Amino acid sequence: MFEDKVVHITKFVAPEIIFGLGALSQVGDSVLRLGARKVFVVTDEGVSSAGWVDTALDSLKEVGIEYECYSDSTSNPKDVEVASGVEAYRLAGCDAVLAVGGGSPIDVAKAVAAVASNGGRINDYEGVNRIIHPLPPMVVVPTTAGSGSEVSQFAMIVDTNRKVKMTIISKSLVPDIALIDPVVLQTKDAELTAVTGMDALSHAIEAYTSLAATPLTDVHAIEALQTIANNLRSSVASRTNLKAKSAMAMASLQAGLAFSNAILGATHAMTHQVDGLLDLHHGKTNAVLLPYVMEFNMIASTDKFVRIAEAFGECVRGMSSWAAAERAVHAVRRLTRDIGIPKNLTALGLNGSYIPQLVKSALNDACLITNPRDVEEEDLTEIFRKAL
Amino acid sequence: MFEDKVVHITKFVAPEIIFGLGALSQVGDSVLRLGARKVFVVTDEGVSSAGWVDTALDSLKEVGIEYECYSDSTSNPKDVEVASGVEAYRLAGCDAVLAVGGGSPIDVAKAVAAVASNGGRINDYEGVNRIIHPLPPMVVVPTTAGSGSEVSQFAMIVDTNRKVKMTIISKSLVPDIALIDPVVLQTKDAELTAVTGMDALSHAIEAYTSLAATPLTDVHAIEALQTIANNLRSSVASRTNLKAKSAMAMASLQAGLAFSNAILGATHAMTHQVDGLLDLHHGKTNAVLLPYVMEFNMIASTDKFVRIAEAFGECVRGMSSWAAAERAVHAVRRLTRDIGIPKNLTALGLNGSYIPQLVKSALNDACLITNPRDVEEEDLTEIFRKAL
Repeated sequence: MFEDKVVHITKFVAPEIIFGLGALSQVGDSVLRLGARKVFVVTDEGVSSAGWVDTALDSLKEVGIEYECYSDSTSNPKDVEVASGVEAYRLAGCDAVLAVGGGSPIDVAKAVAAVASNGGRINDYEGVNRIIHPLPPMVVVPTTAGSGSEVSQFAMIVDTNRKVKMTIISKSLVPDIALIDPVVLQTKDAELTAVTGMDALSHAIEAYTSLAATPLTDVHAIEALQTIANNLRSSVASRTNLKAKSAMAMASLQAGLAFSNAILGATHAMTHQVDGLLDLHHGKTNAVLLPYVMEFNMIASTDKFVRIAEAFGECVRGMSSWAAAERAVHAVRRLTRDIGIPKNLTALGLNGSYIPQLVKSALNDACLITNPRDVEEEDLTEIFRKAL
Repeated sequence: MFEDKVVHITKFVAPEIIFGLGALSQVGDSVLRLGARKVFVVTDEGVSSAGWVDTALDSLKEVGIEYECYSDSTSNPKDVEVASGVEAYRLAGCDAVLAVGGGSPIDVAKAVAAVASNGGRINDYEGVNRIIHPLPPMVVVPTTAGSGSEVSQFAMIVDTNRKVKMTIISKSLVPDIALIDPVVLQTKDAELTAVTGMDALSHAIEAYTSLAATPLTDVHAIEALQTIANNLRSSVASRTNLKAKSAMAMASLQAGLAFSNAILGATHAMTHQVDGLLDLHHGKTNAVLLPYVMEFNMIASTDKFVRIAEAFGECVRGMSSWAAAERAVHAVRRLTRDIGIPKNLTALGLNGSYIPQLVKSALNDACLITNPRDVEEEDLTEIFRKAL
């Protein structure tokens, strides 16, 4: 694979990764090792009621680390929630951050850490590399297999005034330690498993086809999408299939390593706007838009789409490369159908009259820069219309 | 691939990676970003005379970083050289370390950093996880495509009293930033290119078959060995083939990520002793021993050897898995022959009378723990005899 690319100067960043069944109980040791004394614990109701937060807090108590809990963030977390989190962090005199939850609490934790050490509001840091000062130590425990935020340089926060999701990208948003315990995935229902899994798939595919992809991101992207192709259905089918949960946790992690360093594409640029407007689950919107964007992007790198089709186990022998590439889109559509993803944006509650507004804000999204095919206003409009 | 393994709790650590043609000129920025004021620059004569050290020093000057140069280390660096390095580091009042060189200067830089911040002698830290205090910031620029030390938790230092290479493994030996510039590989001759490339291959194969291998290390190991299979010959054939140099630089990096986190096996446990005794190039000894150890290890994980054969492009269709696995050994032997690696240990100057002593010290090497097949004294004796 390496031979095919011109290599410019590229960068790759990853946190320390601790992965495995029961890894959650290493939270205390990990926080201690980073020199923390009082840790700001960001979590959400679902994770709390499943008992995972208690396991994490017990682990902190064991090593004598004080903590302050914060669970007031919502799905698609908002700038105002970050502001109140920062206030709570400062009031409690914390010096480190721990997130135990899905992508939303993790992004809140990152945003609180960024503002706590850099001042101002999270809105000041929208875009690429605008965070200057180092962040307090961060340990992150993802409780869904999807966001990849546990290893990424990304945080997504909704600007409540503009009703758009801000993309904040900075190396300093990469946590110090990502602690991944597949056991915690067992308390998620089939729908959440499906949409978070599709989120991971969209990370793998957009990172793989990104203009900023490198050999280091490609190996993780391809491995992730192959693992998802082989395990997402069985993970959706059973809450307790630990083999499938472990595979999906690893796939989400690898997709995260890929997109954190290769960035994403038009699917995410479009999804961010829809989520900001309708407060939908990010993974669901991604899942609906992904095959439409793949169709649009295919002429940019047919060979990569052939490789995606192969990773999905499609039989492409004897096919023209164009026909083989189309099997990638077919495979993704087939997967979304099998796991009950809604067919189109209308089914998600989107009214077509919002399209011009969505297109306008999508054109400013940082993820569009690395999309493999140039995207104009009319292209986005056309993709949104097809997906409606 | 994931489905086949039971996942226990595993860890993965990597430095920040900057990779590409011309990356060397980012040394100054990188050191500055880590907060250094005066950096201890470890290098060697060959790299200096090729002009690469000047490029690095110019980059330091540009950002106003002071430095102290140290180039007194030899191939298979010794404990006494580390001690004099530490003295020079302290005398000059340095607060960071930069290595520009092959595996030897990089390991000296790591060892100096460890002793400078932890006290004592480097010999105190032999084995796994014996370094307690954090190290000063480290930036590493490898000038060979082989050691992988730029990303690894390993440092190899010769104990001059015992005449053995000590294996020092600690997460804190992972540099902060690895800066990889394939351009610098162009000043290495064919022989050094061959033996360093075989070093990288032995990392990839031993990491892939290691008992501590994980899905995260496997993707890098397999990608590395495929890239080496396709590019080492052409890199040996031409000093200026930048495509081959870039591929080998990336392969060495990925093999480094794999073995740093999966550890190695019997090849390295044996090679370390031979190198300690005869002061040979590590990669050359590895290259000679590797196929013999592969033959011994094959019963431990036949499927992995089949995968290695496939990565080498061997046609294994229709073969029994045992016959297919044997093609992996065949492919490695063919590669070593094509690039002029000596046939056996006798050709390297080893006298058979040393075997009992080599076996005895190999049995204490940390790399033996993760070898996929249990290794007894008589096994090592037998492998050494076959390879003589």
